[in-house]
Amino acid sequence: MESMKTIGRQNRLVAALISAAIFATALVRADLLPSWNDGKAKQSITAFVEKVTTPGSVDFMPVPARIATFDNDGTLWCEKPLPVQLYFAFDRVRALAPQHPEWQTKEPFASILKGDLKTAAAGGDHAIIDLLLATHTGMTTDEFAGIVKDWIATAKHPKTGRLFTEMVYQPMLELVAYLRANGFKTFIVSGGGIEFMRTWTEAVYGIPPEQVIGSSVKTEFELRDGQPVLVRLPEVNFNDDKAGKPVAINEYIGRRPVMAFGNSDGDLQMLQYTGAGGGARFCLYVHHDDAEREYAYDRKDTLAKLDKGLDEAAAKGWTVVSMKNDWKRIFPFEP
Amino acid sequence: MESMKTIGRQNRLVAALISAAIFATALVRADLLPSWNDGKAKQSITAFVEKVTTPGSVDFMPVPARIATFDNDGTLWCEKPLPVQLYFAFDRVRALAPQHPEWQTKEPFASILKGDLKTAAAGGDHAIIDLLLATHTGMTTDEFAGIVKDWIATAKHPKTGRLFTEMVYQPMLELVAYLRANGFKTFIVSGGGIEFMRTWTEAVYGIPPEQVIGSSVKTEFELRDGQPVLVRLPEVNFNDDKAGKPVAINEYIGRRPVMAFGNSDGDLQMLQYTGAGGGARFCLYVHHDDAEREYAYDRKDTLAKLDKGLDEAAAKGWTVVSMKNDWKRIFPFEP
Repeated sequence: MESMKTIGRQNRLVAALISAAIFATALVRADLLPSWNDGKAKQSITAFVEKVTTPGSVDFMPVPARIATFDNDGTLWCEKPLPVQLYFAFDRVRALAPQHPEWQTKEPFASILKGDLKTAAAGGDHAIIDLLLATHTGMTTDEFAGIVKDWIATAKHPKTGRLFTEMVYQPMLELVAYLRANGFKTFIVSGGGIEFMRTWTEAVYGIPPEQVIGSSVKTEFELRDGQPVLVRLPEVNFNDDKAGKPVAINEYIGRRPVMAFGNSDGDLQMLQYTGAGGGARFCLYVHHDDAEREYAYDRKDTLAKLDKGLDEAAAKGWTVVSMKNDWKRIFPFEP
Repeated sequence: MESMKTIGRQNRLVAALISAAIFATALVRADLLPSWNDGKAKQSITAFVEKVTTPGSVDFMPVPARIATFDNDGTLWCEKPLPVQLYFAFDRVRALAPQHPEWQTKEPFASILKGDLKTAAAGGDHAIIDLLLATHTGMTTDEFAGIVKDWIATAKHPKTGRLFTEMVYQPMLELVAYLRANGFKTFIVSGGGIEFMRTWTEAVYGIPPEQVIGSSVKTEFELRDGQPVLVRLPEVNFNDDKAGKPVAINEYIGRRPVMAFGNSDGDLQMLQYTGAGGGARFCLYVHHDDAEREYAYDRKDTLAKLDKGLDEAAAKGWTVVSMKNDWKRIFPFEP
């Protein structure tokens, strides 16, 4: 009787696997990228995914090797007029100002409190790091996550009035889901704060915290009244940008990605590192060339320059997405 | 016609899901922990897993929250007479000695070259760090991975003559697989070298590189003849031990584990951090009390002391596994 049960169990397993396989095939054949215009960019993506996922193909890759890394700011969501995390920092400065009378005369805080965000953001990397450390540290990791969650639930884009979490690129949401449907594990590798992003990436992109890599501050383990907490210290731990991106990919993932997606020179080393792996590799730049529906910026931008990257993409045959021509719509809320 | 196809697809999906669910239920009911004696330890594990995975239970946790972290040395595999990575370092010293004449008179290298491993290992943390930096850095990450892979394929335990990768605990292999079958994502959080472990953990434990956290050296991105490489530098990046473990868990995983497993005071903070999370939590210590089948050591051990941890486990009701009484067999090669 026991062996009959076992056979019954095995039959059910076989039935389940066959049904799942049929469904998976149907899924892959359906157009999971409906917001992409038919053209070279879309074609390059689907052709690549097909060749690395088709059993028997010379470029076939087993599921565990299918690692895809995405920059966040400007690649998955809008980073203009300023990166979202800066608006969070500005709001924190306003909220914390009563406890910091010295900020009334100290930059970049003074300009923020006067509402002059342009001047505040113009102080360069050093001013931005001062601003981030002053507003993002001095609390436990749980407290910080709570502050971000409350903020992101209501904070709105200054131009569209939409929640920042709605300012994500619909074609990229489809791409992330399409890759997952094809067995890829999708990671974010962003210069943005790792704990800032982790509070909302699972809900917005379906990317869980353990697949989010970003810049970080040092934290310290402490027992407070016998309760273990992690305290965020005002010291940079890791700057996940430029040459830091492949370093972080190796440290956090431990495998070289098969596909990488970015939009600026800050992503260049990630794409170089990905593209240089053995076997089939895919690199893609999102090019912001749609001033009407989003923003147009590239070689001369201050915060998110795409200059060397454009040249290297042309030289190496990487895919460059024209937001204007390749995307039917930019944001999910568009008709 | 199109809508008929869609309905057909949905039916297949439903059939697949139902079959998969039936099979999953059968799996969970089977005894996936055959090497565990029936007793309090095994009972505490299965009771916990059942209550957090049963829909409708007050302690039910959705799959993404099911994070389990495991120490490696002494928890998943044998760390006596010395941790495996030290044998690797010793062999590297012998291989590299011709290029380092100064090692003939410099400790801990001189003792290693004389075959006196006890003296070499007795130099304390500082000597061990010197040894690890001298033998684990100065090459690219790809080169290092190749060296470890070659070594681990043949290196053998000095007492049993078995491959080190066979010196893993059969009951823990079953436990890791059992948790995965119940929707848990299993991570290693070890003081061992992250890139040392990642070369073999997937084959041995089914734990992929991106779920392995460990100690690390700094690496640097470089273009060598236009080829991007990561170079391992002789500088400690992170020491993943004691209070470093919860720090690393937060940094790499970004969620508090639901279950944590260790065997020494080096794991205490990981267990404290896990145990203090909201909702049901499970902490377990493996107690090495089987001198006959493995090794017996705890409160007075130098490299892997379990002292404060035993007291805290008693005070907090954590599970303490007696290897002697709770495990039917220790290693997979036992009859």
